[in-house]
Amino acid sequence: MKFNTIVWEDEKIKIIDQTQLPEVEKIIELDNVEKVIEAIKELRVRGAPLIGITAAYGAVVAAKELIGIHIPDIELYKKLFFEKIDKILNSRPTAVNLKNCLDIVKNKFNEVVAISIENPINLVKQQVYENLLYVAKKLHEEDEKICESIGIHGNKLINNNDTILTHCNAGSLATTAWGTALSVIYKAFEDGKKIKVYSDETRPLLQGSRLTAYELLKKGIDVTTICDNMAGFLMKQKKIDKIIVGADRICLNGDFANKIGTYSLAVLAKAHHIPFFVAAPYTTFDKNIKKGEQIPIEFRSPDEIKRFKGFQLAPENVNVYNPAFDVTQSKYVTAFITESGIIYPPYKTNIKKYLKERGIIT
Amino acid sequence: MKFNTIVWEDEKIKIIDQTQLPEVEKIIELDNVEKVIEAIKELRVRGAPLIGITAAYGAVVAAKELIGIHIPDIELYKKLFFEKIDKILNSRPTAVNLKNCLDIVKNKFNEVVAISIENPINLVKQQVYENLLYVAKKLHEEDEKICESIGIHGNKLINNNDTILTHCNAGSLATTAWGTALSVIYKAFEDGKKIKVYSDETRPLLQGSRLTAYELLKKGIDVTTICDNMAGFLMKQKKIDKIIVGADRICLNGDFANKIGTYSLAVLAKAHHIPFFVAAPYTTFDKNIKKGEQIPIEFRSPDEIKRFKGFQLAPENVNVYNPAFDVTQSKYVTAFITESGIIYPPYKTNIKKYLKERGIIT
Repeated sequence: MKFNTIVWEDEKIKIIDQTQLPEVEKIIELDNVEKVIEAIKELRVRGAPLIGITAAYGAVVAAKELIGIHIPDIELYKKLFFEKIDKILNSRPTAVNLKNCLDIVKNKFNEVVAISIENPINLVKQQVYENLLYVAKKLHEEDEKICESIGIHGNKLINNNDTILTHCNAGSLATTAWGTALSVIYKAFEDGKKIKVYSDETRPLLQGSRLTAYELLKKGIDVTTICDNMAGFLMKQKKIDKIIVGADRICLNGDFANKIGTYSLAVLAKAHHIPFFVAAPYTTFDKNIKKGEQIPIEFRSPDEIKRFKGFQLAPENVNVYNPAFDVTQSKYVTAFITESGIIYPPYKTNIKKYLKERGIIT
Repeated sequence: MKFNTIVWEDEKIKIIDQTQLPEVEKIIELDNVEKVIEAIKELRVRGAPLIGITAAYGAVVAAKELIGIHIPDIELYKKLFFEKIDKILNSRPTAVNLKNCLDIVKNKFNEVVAISIENPINLVKQQVYENLLYVAKKLHEEDEKICESIGIHGNKLINNNDTILTHCNAGSLATTAWGTALSVIYKAFEDGKKIKVYSDETRPLLQGSRLTAYELLKKGIDVTTICDNMAGFLMKQKKIDKIIVGADRICLNGDFANKIGTYSLAVLAKAHHIPFFVAAPYTTFDKNIKKGEQIPIEFRSPDEIKRFKGFQLAPENVNVYNPAFDVTQSKYVTAFITESGIIYPPYKTNIKKYLKERGIIT
């Protein structure tokens, strides 16, 4: 059932270009930092966990680039490396995994440089490269295992014959293999449960209809695409048993950012007494942010709403408001599904406990 | 400020082909019943009041077609006429104006035929044609006046500096001239009030971004397009003062059908304590329907969601759920804005009173 969305091969990152799905399944190679940044910015890779892993491999690519050029001293080497890392870091502001993964990379870089400072610079560069590749591969393997565990834990919440609504893509294509929200669905399906899924198309970039429907169909799961504005009417008709979404950043109090439209779904779920679950690994929790208002929200180009493949969807001179994410207060969340189990309210206490157990906070 | 969307000229219906907006402003002629039906089905004309007026003129076109062919007796003439009318009637099921206008046409037809039964059939056919044209023109003029009155009454509810959210297109393009929800905005704007409008793009057919933004811009009103899934987040940020939408059918208890997505907005409005208004003329009230569950809902082609101008938005073999309308319970409605004033709860009593005053029910 596993579906790999990123590989490291021939000293390059290889990804599925998600902007071309579902029409074309094209593998592209990211063999320099500019291409890595372009792929993240243009959403060729997206989804908080996958962005994190791509960034970690991006740092490996950065290290490889610096092997290829003459650098006279270690200080300049450090400067050049961190410049590249900061560029990658700034490619998307909302998902915390990007920062979390690059923090790990930076620590490893500093560690290697500190240890091997007496060595010739070319040797240091080689050691950095090898160590960062090791780190990226470890994060990659860990993401895969963690997402599978999210599915295994989440499966306990799913009943036979459940109809589940999901938003955007929190599937294999958002991670390195299993997904977060969709991992739960995959594990329930593997467990022999009969599951029906409604997938919001998720305007403006249609990750729900293009990606979620695509990967669920690929695995033979019953999926129905709807426009975002149809979800409330489905709930009113009692056609939805549960809602499961992913997250891009979760605060210490349980407020979380996710793809625009998640907040509306959460309010609608509460009004219809439908359980609302958020599936995410520990890397999506931000130990530095206490509440939702502090999460930076990425605004994207008006063109995403005004045009599609050159066709005009709105007058050229209209104003456009295009936040990529929204923030939902924790009071709307029935539970968080993580790799080490389910977190129920009170979230302030229980998220801290979970992060302590993982050694993220002390 | 008036913007005419339908005219009767050279014995033909002339309309703006709304499927081509905002890119192309193309006038098309509907000179036979097949073209009238195609224009209604394909949404070249849409919006409950405009569909009604188009259908009334469609009946005139039907009468004209029957002048052109040899018909031996009056019974066959009646049969042929009613066949055409029924085809027009079946072109869209949800909006009640279509039925209301065609009921008036049918009554006039029966009246003319009954009076002139002794005349030669060619004279009867000519008399029917002239009488139906008179009826259609009267309905057309009335729609224009009524929509302007809706705006004048609704304006009383609008404050200077209000930010208003609207869904789909309940504007000039949905009626013969002023619109219903947008008539309120036009009258407030004419009155010198500073108004900001957010327009949901309204998937799948984008009437909000294509039509509402287009006609508001045409009149110089500050309009911002958003995707449907962004409305809740705007409300959360307290950026919306009022919501005004149109309706396709209103029951005697105040439940109403409108473009898919309206129900979600109503629930979100209630959760955020934002007033939610429905603007509609008496022709949108259905004296034969007591509550929302009885309203027939039109389901449209999966292609509207799966493809856009030939580009794939979802996998070809995915299931699609595509209701064109949803039903909102009256408990979510702050007030109905009509041509004779504002209707507040209790709706069961006050809608009956309104329809009695208009002579619709006794």
